[in-house]
Amino acid sequence: MTEQKKTTNIILFSGDYDKAMAAYIIANGAAAYDHEVTIFHTFWGLNALRKDEPLALKKGFLEKMFARMMPRGADKMGLSNMNFAGMGPKMIKHVIKKHNAMTLPQLVETAREQDVKLVACTMTMDLLGLQQEELLENIEYAGVAAYLADAEDGNVNLFI
Amino acid sequence: MTEQKKTTNIILFSGDYDKAMAAYIIANGAAAYDHEVTIFHTFWGLNALRKDEPLALKKGFLEKMFARMMPRGADKMGLSNMNFAGMGPKMIKHVIKKHNAMTLPQLVETAREQDVKLVACTMTMDLLGLQQEELLENIEYAGVAAYLADAEDGNVNLFI
Amino acid sequence: MTEQKKTTNIILFSGDYDKAMAAYIIANGAAAYDHEVTIFHTFWGLNALRKDEPLALKKGFLEKMFARMMPRGADKMGLSNMNFAGMGPKMIKHVIKKHNAMTLPQLVETAREQDVKLVACTMTMDLLGLQQEELLENIEYAGVAAYLADAEDGNVNLFI
Repeated sequence: MTEQKKTTNIILFSGDYDKAMAAYIIANGAAAYDHEVTIFHTFWGLNALRKDEPLALKKGFLEKMFARMMPRGADKMGLSNMNFAGMGPKMIKHVIKKHNAMTLPQLVETAREQDVKLVACTMTMDLLGLQQEELLENIEYAGVAAYLADAEDGNVNLFI
Repeated sequence: MTEQKKTTNIILFSGDYDKAMAAYIIANGAAAYDHEVTIFHTFWGLNALRKDEPLALKKGFLEKMFARMMPRGADKMGLSNMNFAGMGPKMIKHVIKKHNAMTLPQLVETAREQDVKLVACTMTMDLLGLQQEELLENIEYAGVAAYLADAEDGNVNLFI
Repeated sequence: MTEQKKTTNIILFSGDYDKAMAAYIIANGAAAYDHEVTIFHTFWGLNALRKDEPLALKKGFLEKMFARMMPRGADKMGLSNMNFAGMGPKMIKHVIKKHNAMTLPQLVETAREQDVKLVACTMTMDLLGLQQEELLENIEYAGVAAYLADAEDGNVNLFI
């Protein structure tokens, strides 16, 4: 008889570099702790999953606006605090390197290596006009029902 | 013997349109999933429960200031991100309509139809000088003790 | 045979006065409710634990910048909403006094009296160059693994 694994379910709503860092640090910690871990990316949190190159896709006007205004990938996101027109993120990345800590793109990569399940919220993708080609490969697509099915038996549920 | 219902308890602290949308989408999903669902509105989250007409109520100076500066109801709230002096909310509402999704006031209405328990935090109402006449009818009033009594046996507890 | 105590585990990520108030109000309520309560302060949430006097410590340039730009202690933090260049916090503190509610420093003090475990995230302290001398006495120091060990059996887990 196998014991059931503990689970950690994180909703990443925020598009801030520092909040996404916190989400991925907790996720990676939980995975190392042998939890089954899911990060459900919704609203601005989807930006952490965007590829960094621009793609020529057919889109409506508003969808193009959103695509252009939102940061393209984890490395381009701003801070929730002390952003100072982009100086804050540079300072953070500088101290991350200095302390041999992991940048957000490295944290995302590590999460994938540890089989953290990365999910993109399909409802928000529809709303913001994001297409699967714009997001990283090998992620999952699901809605709020799938999140709840995971979370209702979860041990650590967080909204970030 | 009846099995106990699962429960979802959301603290809505934020006064942002998009975060309140997320809270209500999760709440409505959980209610459809047969959870008992409570949204505990505290601090700026109370704005989602405000009526949209101004009321002539006797208030002190600071309470009047808060009442005037805070958005009056779900439809007036700003975005957490890309607010752009009010353009962001217009864009979001536009894509919501285009995709036949629900606006925040519609999400609140649906939650009420699904018997999601909407609670206003009495301590914050005191602090900000909000009176029951200013909030929607048929909601409940409670403090942090009531929240904890629900949440300590809850399945999905989120702070938004 | 003693029954196991329920537990509340709060991650305080935010450096906003109002969000920290919410975290400490929930924590104090849960402690009064006989929960074992932990507040894990990470990123900007560490500011709530800073002493208010400046200290002459040896630091690198960026660490000095962070130390200078971040608020020194609970009383100096801004609001998440309606900050209005510092007017918002003054208004909030004014209504707090008027209603005999507790300010953030008083909430922190009460939490300590009720044996709420206050933890400072060592990883963030490293990143931001914060040293133990700069934080309140008698707090604990730990990383994400310790948080997860508490939270995985927790009843109320929140990220604020």
